Amino acid sequence: MTQTELVPGLAGIPAAESSISFINGAEGLLSYRGIRIEELAAQSHFEEVVSLLWDAKLPSQSELDALSGRLKSHRELGPALSKFVLGLPQSGHPMEALQAGLAALGMVSPVLDDNDPASWRDACERIMGAASTLIASCERNRQGKELVTPDPELSIAGNFLYCLNGEKPDAIRERILDCALVLHAEHTMNASTFACRVVTSTETNPYTATSAAVGALFGPLHGGANERVLRQLESIGGPDKVQEWFERKTAAKEKIMGFGHRVYSTKDPRAHSLQELARELFKTHGSTPLYDTALALEELVTAKLGSRGIYPNVDFFSGIVYQKLGIPTDVFTPIFALSRLSGWLAHWMEQRGDNKLFRPGQIYTGRKDVTYTPMGER
Amino acid sequence: MTQTELVPGLAGIPAAESSISFINGAEGLLSYRGIRIEELAAQSHFEEVVSLLWDAKLPSQSELDALSGRLKSHRELGPALSKFVLGLPQSGHPMEALQAGLAALGMVSPVLDDNDPASWRDACERIMGAASTLIASCERNRQGKELVTPDPELSIAGNFLYCLNGEKPDAIRERILDCALVLHAEHTMNASTFACRVVTSTETNPYTATSAAVGALFGPLHGGANERVLRQLESIGGPDKVQEWFERKTAAKEKIMGFGHRVYSTKDPRAHSLQELARELFKTHGSTPLYDTALALEELVTAKLGSRGIYPNVDFFSGIVYQKLGIPTDVFTPIFALSRLSGWLAHWMEQRGDNKLFRPGQIYTGRKDVTYTPMGER
Repeated sequence: MTQTELVPGLAGIPAAESSISFINGAEGLLSYRGIRIEELAAQSHFEEVVSLLWDAKLPSQSELDALSGRLKSHRELGPALSKFVLGLPQSGHPMEALQAGLAALGMVSPVLDDNDPASWRDACERIMGAASTLIASCERNRQGKELVTPDPELSIAGNFLYCLNGEKPDAIRERILDCALVLHAEHTMNASTFACRVVTSTETNPYTATSAAVGALFGPLHGGANERVLRQLESIGGPDKVQEWFERKTAAKEKIMGFGHRVYSTKDPRAHSLQELARELFKTHGSTPLYDTALALEELVTAKLGSRGIYPNVDFFSGIVYQKLGIPTDVFTPIFALSRLSGWLAHWMEQRGDNKLFRPGQIYTGRKDVTYTPMGER
Repeated sequence: MTQTELVPGLAGIPAAESSISFINGAEGLLSYRGIRIEELAAQSHFEEVVSLLWDAKLPSQSELDALSGRLKSHRELGPALSKFVLGLPQSGHPMEALQAGLAALGMVSPVLDDNDPASWRDACERIMGAASTLIASCERNRQGKELVTPDPELSIAGNFLYCLNGEKPDAIRERILDCALVLHAEHTMNASTFACRVVTSTETNPYTATSAAVGALFGPLHGGANERVLRQLESIGGPDKVQEWFERKTAAKEKIMGFGHRVYSTKDPRAHSLQELARELFKTHGSTPLYDTALALEELVTAKLGSRGIYPNVDFFSGIVYQKLGIPTDVFTPIFALSRLSGWLAHWMEQRGDNKLFRPGQIYTGRKDVTYTPMGER
């Protein structure tokens, strides 16, 4: 029987069959193509995860080399897209720039041939290949700095940091960003992925569909949680103020950012991997008052609320880490998008592979049979 | 009871309560805020329809003057957005340019204040005010022509034609485009409107949400039907070839574009108004072989299939008319978007007014408990 009553947000109503990722919130389980996120974070890397998400299996060395090579071949923006980036307003948010940028990438890319699935895959690779350069270049333009020519030797994570900062990152910096990209690549039918599939269902190209998904991720209810964690940590004012701050917050029953997650009733399975790498980063590159504040808050919240299943989530650590990597706060969500593009594109291919146009119903609550009254009679 | 089986495309599943528009497909009825589209097409005009859609009632003269004035005040792109338009690639489709352009408009506009509903309305007016200039300017850039400074005296329809062609349109041209904008402004929960609402549900701004909706409208299953009608008419080769072409098509059971509509089982209520104006346009400005072909096809199809409820739809007439107005074929869908922005923005305001994040479920069909195999063991 088809649902006829409104379920707000379509919560629990299946929007698609999908074999890409799986979450069991009660067990704290997230898997990509059946492989647990903890294993991928520890042993894999982002380019391999792209391959896994898109091809539903781990690649052989030659398959991985071939994909990485093709992604690297699309890394340079080229003259038309560079001109576009330099024409972007310097005001506004980097997510708006990315939304515009993905549409523009489509404008300079070959038109898809619906009879040639190879052209679909090629378009996805162009997006994933160019994204690290595109996001970093938009930010360079915003800062009024010259664009950096991408380095074909680097990983996607390394190239992003290089094109953003103009300096090649050391191994731990590249590794930690790579791990963050692995952790954020895919997360079932969230709002941006759903938006991507709805737009895809009109049989549009992946440039258009991922541009739309960026729009959804830009919303404060979706992306941007780690920005808010960082602002919260800054507002505490130091590790010695944590106890007092926590007591004030809990007394006022205010939300503490960075703990718990709507889909996990136990630990966020992505948090631990980033926590370990954060420890290493701050150990080797020096701690900061903000990190010390975070550690104190984590210890306190876990001691007080851990028995109720409230633990730090992935956003708690990612913001602190990105800041330590020298990334401006409002580029945090574009990094989320850089990673999630891999998942959105997997959903684009899955949706196009067995497509049905989304056209849900509505419950009409307005007036009927209203007569047009001419202006003189109103 | 909540739906647990997959309904492809969520067909018939209500996605929202909405009081904006209503369709009764069996009766061939479309109304905006309860007023039938035929009455609006005959007696109203686009600016008034924007007011009706947004405020749920027909405006008084002073309300309409105030809204029109504010829309006109946002008509100029300003230096940053003009620079952006001139930086757009000249390749690609005008819908991709518009998707990028709406995101860029957000970059040069004030950030919304969630505690100040006036800032929401202001953002919607900025979009509706600038859209005619933005779409026309993107097309001028693509053609390598200088941008035209918009005229604050003209209507939205008139300004669009002026900024596109550099010449002020005569009354019948302006009236017919205005009528097309009225007819396409809103159409319940179609794919682009649904995409707009999904993106809006993350509490993002209307620039981002309408940019995403443009992405959905770009898809061949959604916008672009009138482009295909025009190509079909061109392929027939003249009014004397219609009979033979029709017999060949029906024998091969191939689809004839521009007749029937998925949501109307009787006449498309939007078709008649445009048909009348088309007659007037071609009478005063001279017929074309394409129009004569269209008339012959319409007569034949209506005679043969009208008893089965197959009549020309709105797309049958809009493409012929737009071509006669000197509009390039791939700017037809951006005109659809110019009109539909008014509906999307009404849905943006309705969604934000009573929001719940869209996060539907999925039916997982993939593998579980797959172990990560190191590269050497694959």
